[in-house]
Amino acid sequence: MPRPSLREKLASSAVDTLHAKGFHGCSIQDITDAAGVPKGSFFNHFKSKEALAIEALGRYLEASRADSLLDKTIPPLERLKNHFSYITDKIEASDFQRGCLLGNLATEMADEYPKMRERLRMAFQSWSEAVESVLREAQAAGDIDPRHDPGELGRFLVNAWEGAIMRLKITKDRAPLDEFFHICFKVLLK
Amino acid sequence: MPRPSLREKLASSAVDTLHAKGFHGCSIQDITDAAGVPKGSFFNHFKSKEALAIEALGRYLEASRADSLLDKTIPPLERLKNHFSYITDKIEASDFQRGCLLGNLATEMADEYPKMRERLRMAFQSWSEAVESVLREAQAAGDIDPRHDPGELGRFLVNAWEGAIMRLKITKDRAPLDEFFHICFKVLLK
Repeated sequence: MPRPSLREKLASSAVDTLHAKGFHGCSIQDITDAAGVPKGSFFNHFKSKEALAIEALGRYLEASRADSLLDKTIPPLERLKNHFSYITDKIEASDFQRGCLLGNLATEMADEYPKMRERLRMAFQSWSEAVESVLREAQAAGDIDPRHDPGELGRFLVNAWEGAIMRLKITKDRAPLDEFFHICFKVLLK
Repeated sequence: MPRPSLREKLASSAVDTLHAKGFHGCSIQDITDAAGVPKGSFFNHFKSKEALAIEALGRYLEASRADSLLDKTIPPLERLKNHFSYITDKIEASDFQRGCLLGNLATEMADEYPKMRERLRMAFQSWSEAVESVLREAQAAGDIDPRHDPGELGRFLVNAWEGAIMRLKITKDRAPLDEFFHICFKVLLK
């Protein structure tokens, strides 16, 4: 197997460093050190720390498997539960540290980094639209109340989920996610 | 009127600086510059940047008027709406920049600053408990479904609200809060 390029090393290592320390909480040197590449090589591969963070976010999103929301071989509400369970398991495996990279970067960068904000806007939009499409299917199947607006509810659930992940960074347990599951699936989508 | 002490200047100015730039996004010098006090005086008044951030958070919480949730002269659900409307107005007045200082510090600091995490834990808990007590009153008055668990629902709503505020940092409009209002008051608490 060929050795990963410096660019590849930087990008894959940055996902971890940015997730653990936040955008302002780590320096370019922290990122190059973690990647095991010379600091001087950074700007040969990325125009800015923001550009690397945008690349890292894309990789994080790919690993989050939101496309499983579109797998129509699984009944819609079961698919939605599987999606949130998959994220819950990953968060539990990291001892409730770090939170969600998407939410972390939104909180830290949205005001001052327009390119990152646009990337985050697209990411939240496509995630929300995937949840919306699952809710539409569930409505068509008669599984949930036909009076729900699936677009609004999809965005609300994504935001509520991000808020629950923020809260568990403080509680350091899964209670906020368990409560999200209960209200999402036993109250809102009953 | 006596002139504010250096400590007072630092603490009141830090609320603004930390809210605008984040904990890691500003230096102690940024805070002393904004306060108009000599950098060298900082450690005469605060043991650390974290200690100042904890003081600033307390001031922010006082200004957020969560105690109005306990004002029993106003019907419970109206009081809850007023509470979230008050925050919405403040956020709109700041052009949807900055988000919520509580949520911002939770995202940025909870993993690595145990004292701040404990302060945030208490703040989220007392806010959630105030919402819970409003929901209990609404249940006792027959305004909302008696099957809700007010504790769980109170925590869920606080988290969902924080998630909506995170989202509006990206959308730069009030849509996430309007959608929160709709689902909170027309679906969950109908």
